[in-house]
Amino acid sequence: MDKNTLLKIKQIVGTSNYLDSDEDKIVYSYDGTPMLSHKPQAVVMPESPSQISEILKLANSEKFAVVPRGSGTGLSGGAVAVENSIIMLMHKWDKILEIDEENLTAWVQPGVKTYDFHQAVEQKGLFYPPDPGSQKICTLGGNVAENAGGLRGLKYGVTRDYVMAVEMVLPNGEILINGGKNVKDVAGYNLRDLIVGSEGTLGIFTKILLRLLPKPKSSKTILAFFSSLQDAAKSVSDIIAAHIIPCTMEFLDSTTIKCVEDFAKIGLPTNVDALLLLESDGHPEQVADEAEKMYEILKRNNATEIKVAQDAQEADQLKTARRAAFSALARVKPTTILEDATVPRSNLAPLIKKVSELAQKYNLMVGNFGHAGDGNMHPTVLTDERNKEELERVEKFFDELYDETIRLGGTITGEHGVGLAKKKYLKRLIDSSSLKMMQDIKKAIDPNNILNPGKIFSV
Amino acid sequence: MDKNTLLKIKQIVGTSNYLDSDEDKIVYSYDGTPMLSHKPQAVVMPESPSQISEILKLANSEKFAVVPRGSGTGLSGGAVAVENSIIMLMHKWDKILEIDEENLTAWVQPGVKTYDFHQAVEQKGLFYPPDPGSQKICTLGGNVAENAGGLRGLKYGVTRDYVMAVEMVLPNGEILINGGKNVKDVAGYNLRDLIVGSEGTLGIFTKILLRLLPKPKSSKTILAFFSSLQDAAKSVSDIIAAHIIPCTMEFLDSTTIKCVEDFAKIGLPTNVDALLLLESDGHPEQVADEAEKMYEILKRNNATEIKVAQDAQEADQLKTARRAAFSALARVKPTTILEDATVPRSNLAPLIKKVSELAQKYNLMVGNFGHAGDGNMHPTVLTDERNKEELERVEKFFDELYDETIRLGGTITGEHGVGLAKKKYLKRLIDSSSLKMMQDIKKAIDPNNILNPGKIFSV
Repeated sequence: MDKNTLLKIKQIVGTSNYLDSDEDKIVYSYDGTPMLSHKPQAVVMPESPSQISEILKLANSEKFAVVPRGSGTGLSGGAVAVENSIIMLMHKWDKILEIDEENLTAWVQPGVKTYDFHQAVEQKGLFYPPDPGSQKICTLGGNVAENAGGLRGLKYGVTRDYVMAVEMVLPNGEILINGGKNVKDVAGYNLRDLIVGSEGTLGIFTKILLRLLPKPKSSKTILAFFSSLQDAAKSVSDIIAAHIIPCTMEFLDSTTIKCVEDFAKIGLPTNVDALLLLESDGHPEQVADEAEKMYEILKRNNATEIKVAQDAQEADQLKTARRAAFSALARVKPTTILEDATVPRSNLAPLIKKVSELAQKYNLMVGNFGHAGDGNMHPTVLTDERNKEELERVEKFFDELYDETIRLGGTITGEHGVGLAKKKYLKRLIDSSSLKMMQDIKKAIDPNNILNPGKIFSV
Repeated sequence: MDKNTLLKIKQIVGTSNYLDSDEDKIVYSYDGTPMLSHKPQAVVMPESPSQISEILKLANSEKFAVVPRGSGTGLSGGAVAVENSIIMLMHKWDKILEIDEENLTAWVQPGVKTYDFHQAVEQKGLFYPPDPGSQKICTLGGNVAENAGGLRGLKYGVTRDYVMAVEMVLPNGEILINGGKNVKDVAGYNLRDLIVGSEGTLGIFTKILLRLLPKPKSSKTILAFFSSLQDAAKSVSDIIAAHIIPCTMEFLDSTTIKCVEDFAKIGLPTNVDALLLLESDGHPEQVADEAEKMYEILKRNNATEIKVAQDAQEADQLKTARRAAFSALARVKPTTILEDATVPRSNLAPLIKKVSELAQKYNLMVGNFGHAGDGNMHPTVLTDERNKEELERVEKFFDELYDETIRLGGTITGEHGVGLAKKKYLKRLIDSSSLKMMQDIKKAIDPNNILNPGKIFSV
């Protein structure tokens, strides 16, 4: 990018919203994804939709790329800068504009932190279910761009299920709103559902309308330990077969349990093979019934120990094990590669088995944990990117794991997105007609390929 | 279309799957929408995805249009033939291919009738919520194409919320599958959610994967009568404000009530101004609690009579009033124009008021009923298409009604689609950037505009 173009960009956003020192470029050269980084030419913090629009128009005429970024917690490289690009920082757009208690909706700016939003709506007796692992720092805009999931997806679905409208700036600089407060609306193509999960490649959000629910009246949390992976997996399918849909059904393997205990010292047994964290929520009688039935199923499947939280504080303690999993694994070795293999729920047991077989085969340290009820596992390789020989084994591990995931009817990413990190697997998963249709849509909406180019697929 | 092209089409599907007599053309010249008809050049019943693919390829080379059709119950003209077109009939694709009780999913062909599917899954203790008014004859393929709603949308959402994957033939003849049994999947753009509700303009379904729920353990049905529209509307908002989300919250106005009683003789009081049909479902204790609270709210809002069903048979009787509404209105006059005005729930009362004001202003017989909990009303004008003078007043009635609906933050169609019937209102509702984005997507996927052209918008 030439100096003149950078100067024009600076004039659009103003000097105080423009960064281009070497230090800044380094800070914004990576996101939460290991082993991916690229320095942008500049970092901008636009203050209005019209500034965003002006920058995108300039990008089309001067042929540079724009990479939108929230808190940069993504795990697929979606916010990593690309060749000849600027980073567009949205984390200062952090206002909750309206909570409409009559219609159970909220207008938010894209930079609102997910956890802050949870707190705000819960104060009004309302509930926003999506709760990705990074909820304390990630932004709602990022959640919508990636269609983030979380621990409550089994019963409540993912971010997509709560987006009622978006206001966004298209790659050509036009501003559009799609959707509204109508709970039913079939007027034209559903652009918002195309945009949710499009990983910042089709538009930059400036406002988002989210659907809210009444806060569940009660909940019950259970933690169960197993000396066999199979028993844990069988418990998961038995609970669904009993027509119970808990809001949370999470799994940790022995490596992850040991790392968590070592990190958080919460008194977890370290001689077990697996742990399940279960939570039922809703009407108190329903919760009591479901908790009792789940207890019986866990017992029947040889759980070695079952803890039932007696109050909210105990429930929080039981949840610590799961919430700490990623951080606990991340401190063991210099490089943590967290993956996102997802299979139909019925194939959870073979997936878990394959992860531990492949860890042995390639002699790698792998912790496995995730959303068992969703069939969504996060096999996490603990390695060191300076060890090239080990990295080759890591690559083979994931290659084989994703082939097996696809063979089991699964997908290469359940909630983290394709970004840069999963591009090579996408072609193995989807047919060429689907890939071409996606590329045709991208070309139609962003003909000069200026918005987050090279992510998901190469146009 | 020349004889040679028609002959090629006949050769693709075989003589027994090809109709082109005048009688056949007349039968397939209209759907459930009044005052719209156009004769196709031929009607075909393809037997395989490859036959569909061959016909679409031929349509591209010979430049004719293909209009897909299920049972033809649509209310926006989506299945009405257009200039130089053939109808592609899909109602014989009526097999339920798989009900997967472990993953709570079902693969179906697009021609399965919605009600038959309900029965099949309920026999296994499972539940498929979308229940459009025409459920006994409409097809699941049509439901997906139109993103159909129904009486249970308030709690359970619409068809879109249950589509996990589609196999479809694209306008260029390519066959693709998007989605699968993974409850979380963010691998690439969400093509299936773009296709749901695209009204047969982007592809022809050959297989659909639907999500199922465990069947609710119990339900309770309540019918309440009011001598004031405002009291009925206030009851609806008070119930939501009490954080109760019933599965059904339906409204009938006095004209509709009188027509239903005249038609079905079920003992409805004909001196009331409105009725509400409410249903709570779920855990028995939750249902009992919700029913009690709803009863109190109805009473507080001056309900003149409240009937609580004591068993399933009584519940069915109470629901008859609502289920019979359309048929009861349709028999009064030769032409029934059923509309689909939808507003944010909080604006239900002004919408209902406007409908009755405008009926008076234009001296029209209008029955109003619909999904009060969703803000989705079906104002129904009873008229006679041979009376040109009255039809002009009907047009003014809808013109003014939709302007008001849009002013109230509403949409021109909650669940019936745009098709041909709503094209002129779409431009009033959505901004030009959104319209252009929709048209750009259509052009990218169907460059020769052969699949259901002229529906939703003109490309």
